[in-house]
Parts: sequence; C-alpha cells; structure tokens
Amino acid sequence: MTKQDLIDAKERIGAHVHRTPVLTSKQLDEVSTAQLFFKCENFQRMGAFKMRGAANAVFSLTEAEQQRGVVTHSSGNFAQAVSLSAKTAGIPAYIVMPETAPLVKQTAVKGYGGQITICPATLKDRESNAEAIQKEKGATFLHPSNQEEVILGNATAAMELLEDHPDLDYILTPVGGGGLLAGTALAAHYFGQGCKTIGGEPFEVDDAYRSLQSGKIEKNASANTIADGLRTELGDINFPIIKEYVDQIIRVEEDEIVQAMRLIWERMKIIIEPSCAVPFAAVLREKELFKGKRVGIILSGGNVDLGKLPF
Amino acid sequence: MTKQDLIDAKERIGAHVHRTPVLTSKQLDEVSTAQLFFKCENFQRMGAFKMRGAANAVFSLTEAEQQRGVVTHSSGNFAQAVSLSAKTAGIPAYIVMPETAPLVKQTAVKGYGGQITICPATLKDRESNAEAIQKEKGATFLHPSNQEEVILGNATAAMELLEDHPDLDYILTPVGGGGLLAGTALAAHYFGQGCKTIGGEPFEVDDAYRSLQSGKIEKNASANTIADGLRTELGDINFPIIKEYVDQIIRVEEDEIVQAMRLIWERMKIIIEPSCAVPFAAVLREKELFKGKRVGIILSGGNVDLGKLPF
Repeated sequence: MTKQDLIDAKERIGAHVHRTPVLTSKQLDEVSTAQLFFKCENFQRMGAFKMRGAANAVFSLTEAEQQRGVVTHSSGNFAQAVSLSAKTAGIPAYIVMPETAPLVKQTAVKGYGGQITICPATLKDRESNAEAIQKEKGATFLHPSNQEEVILGNATAAMELLEDHPDLDYILTPVGGGGLLAGTALAAHYFGQGCKTIGGEPFEVDDAYRSLQSGKIEKNASANTIADGLRTELGDINFPIIKEYVDQIIRVEEDEIVQAMRLIWERMKIIIEPSCAVPFAAVLREKELFKGKRVGIILSGGNVDLGKLPF
Repeated sequence: MTKQDLIDAKERIGAHVHRTPVLTSKQLDEVSTAQLFFKCENFQRMGAFKMRGAANAVFSLTEAEQQRGVVTHSSGNFAQAVSLSAKTAGIPAYIVMPETAPLVKQTAVKGYGGQITICPATLKDRESNAEAIQKEKGATFLHPSNQEEVILGNATAAMELLEDHPDLDYILTPVGGGGLLAGTALAAHYFGQGCKTIGGEPFEVDDAYRSLQSGKIEKNASANTIADGLRTELGDINFPIIKEYVDQIIRVEEDEIVQAMRLIWERMKIIIEPSCAVPFAAVLREKELFKGKRVGIILSGGNVDLGKLPF
C-alpha cells in the first residue's frame, strides 16, 4: 500500500466520517510524565474508528458492486460501521450476528439500517451464513481487519492526528485483529517525522506480541480479557505490515486496563471502551520509555454497555 | 450588574479557565426535534462551571485580601473550584467540609491545595466554622451561588456560547443555588438576540419554580433527588435577577433525569453529572416548545462517583 493509497482513502471517506478532535489533559500528562495527544475516535460516527475502514471499503466498490450490497459477520462495532456506511451509500448491508450478540448491539445495527441474520455462535456458522448471503445476493464480503481497504480507511485517523501534531515521537493503538495497528503504522511511516508505532495488547490475548516474536501468526489460547474488542487475531494482510512497520507491542494486565479506563473517564470526562484504554495503560506501564515524549494515542471507540461497567 | 461588569469578569478570568468546546449531536437533535448546542463545562478545570465563579471571586480581591486567603463551606464542586482558584492565585484556601463528605471529595480538595476543616454535618456548624476562620485568618468568605462576583464569573460560560452561536433562541441551565441561572440570564440579556433563559429543576427540589410563582424565596421540603448539586436554594442576590430575566423554570421527574443523563453518555460519549442532565431532560419533556429552535444547554459539570451510577 503506497502513500498515494492512503491519500486517496482519506479523500474518499472525507465527507462520510467525522474529523474527530484531538484532546489533551494536563492531569494525565502529569500522571504519565509524557505529553499525550488523544485522537478521539470514540466521537466518530457510530462511536468507533471502525467507521473509517468500513466507509473506505464501501466507497471503494464499483457502482455495480455497491448495488448488490455488502455482507459481514460481526457482533461488535464493525457490524454497526458497515451498516452505517452502507446506509450512507444507499445500499444494503447484510449482517450475520451470533445468537449470543447482546440485544443492544442488534438494536444498534438495525438502527443503522443493517439487515440481520442470526446464526449459532460458532465461527464456522458465521462464515457459512455470510457465504450463503454472498452467493444469494452477490454482496461483497467485508472483513473487519484483514482487508486492504479497511486498513487504508483506518490509517486516516493517524493521518489526521499527524496533520494536527506532525512531530509526534510515538503513536499507540490497541491491537486486536490488527487492522487499526497496521493502518496507523503505514500512516506514521509515510506521514510521521520518525514517528514510531506501538501496539498495546492485553497479556490475556497476546497473539500479536507472540506473532512478532515467532515471525508467524499465533493464536490466542483464551479470550479472557475485559478488552472485548481485542480477542480477535492478526490476518495475513495486516501481519506483514505490522512486522515491517510496528516498533513493538506492549502488553498490559487486566487491572491496568481498568485503571487506565477509569483515569480517562474521571479526568477527561469522556467515555471510552475497555479496549480503548489499553494503549494508555501501556504508556503508564512503560513510563521510562515515554518520559518527556510526544505521544499520540488513538482512542479507538466509546461503545460500552453502561449496565456492565468494571467500576 | 452591568454589561461592562460581565465583560470585565470575562477578561479577568480568561487566563485561568478553559474556553470549553460547544458540541452538537445529530442523534440528540433527532430525539429532541430541536437544534442543540452543548456548552461543555464538564471539560472545565476541576470539572465544572463553578471554576468560573470561584476564579472571578478570587481574582476580584485586592492584593491584601488575597494574601489573607479565602474560605468557604462546601462538600461539592465549589470547594474544589475555590481550592484550585486560590492555588492558581498562589493564596490559601480554607475549606470547611461536613464530616459526611465523601473521601473522594476531600481528596480532590486536598489535591488542589485546599486546607480542610472537618465539622459536624449541619449548616450551623459549617457556618460557625467558616466564620471562625474568617476571624482568625482574615480570610474572605466566598459563597457558591449568592455573590455578585460568582454570578458574574458564571455568566462567562453563556457569553462564550453566544460568541460561538449568537442566534440562539434559548439557553437552559440547571437551577440549584441559582448562581449559574442568574449569570446565564444576564449574559443572554446583554449578549443574546432575543435569547430566552430557562432553568431546569427537579420536581423533588422545585424551590426556584415555587419562588417564581410566589414572588419570594421558597424552601425545599426534601432533598430527595439524584441531582445532588441542585438541592440548594436561591439567595437574595440571585433571586431578583432570576425574577427579572428568566423566562421560566421547567420541572422534571427523577426518571427523566436519569434517562437524559444516559442519552448524553451513550450518544455523545461524554461524562456529565446527574444535575447536569436536568436541562436536557427539560427539553425532552417540553418538546413542542423547543421544536425547530436553536437551544443552548450549559452542561454544568462532569464530577460523578463512578462507583455509584444510576444505570
């Protein structure tokens, strides 16, 4: 993916996503001893950076492809992002959701105009249902993280951040499927001034950390983390980018995630998801590395179930 | 209080408070059928508009007065605001707090450099302790809502809002002690273009509503509201302003407050106090009045105990 590909993606989705604000906090600068720049994708349309990748994928389709619609299987933010992007383009979105998906998420997808197919909660069932829709409707399958258009769309958050603050030393993102980390690393490579990209990952699902160690895509043994957006694993399209352009992965404990989340809620008065707190937790864990540095953090999303908070 | 008094206050505190952002939300516009402009004082220093009044009071003192310090009795945001304003000015702040004040609030006051005196939890004890400090230290007593300098400082939030959006039809604030409502009404009077000021108040503590009805300051029979910042009553300095310049008070039920608070948290991804949700609850309750109108809402503060949420 070239520098021009990133510029094209930013141009393509500009009218369909928010340019989110970059917030700073004296209190969190004091706590971390770094100078922090929070890119607030929790204020993005549908509440997460996923809107960028989904919008870029939808608006990269030909008109004929668009008319046949798009399909994905997801129980999370990507389902909402695809639904809203498709609605924006005026085309159908078919969303395969596991029967275990919370009603609130189903309602959100429906609210954005997504057409839901409920299936048993196994990956195999999700995939076979999505394939059936692809065949029947001729819809294009969109992957939440392992797809070029999605990675390019995700890259635009860091591009905007670097436009606002060109001289960052680091940009951090959480790493789950790897689509945000890969896109951010490309943006830092092409548009930063020696800016390094670092991923934050829970110890409990440290597949990305281990993948960078072993040089091949590793799997997670458990999904036992509060950062529910980060339980997914890297893909064959984003992993080579991460290998080439990501400086390191910092792992954090579960209690560090909750503490970081709480600090951001209490001091910045903004709502972020647990997954979204992981990079800030990484900065607090490795204070010496970031001391006095200018550090960008992509706050990835703000969709939380207020009835199930960890405080 | 003249137009020039407001201009002077804004000039006086400009360097000591944040110019807070004004946020909009397509989703909440749809829900309310109005066009809403949220002035985010939850992002103010120490997390509430109270910083404005306290700063104006502290920086209105003579140098000799400043050196003897300031004193107040409060268990809430005003204690933090006075502490931080005094710290900013480099002078002592003496804070009388009832022994029932949550530890988290005591810690916050100490964090801002306030010197705490703990007393029994009656108004009489609070007042006598504050008086003793006034005598002993020569400190100036600051009132959280019923003082000219405080009202003028509070007015600056609406002044900024009207600078950004001069053609508002209404500005709403919560009403507790009346200091924010009075200041806002003065700002709308002097700087609005026919902009009306409306107060939002819980039915449970509707002293302001009843005071406007009877023409004299009424008391609350109970303090049984989730909007804990609004349990206080009007004073003899702000009530005449409210009588002259406030269009009406809209009362809301407790469940309407919680619902409005939740909508703002979920849709806007920002943290606001229960008291702060009252004006938005009023807009939702009286939809016909606000339909199609341009409505400013002062989001008064974001200091909540995350361990005690109503969701």
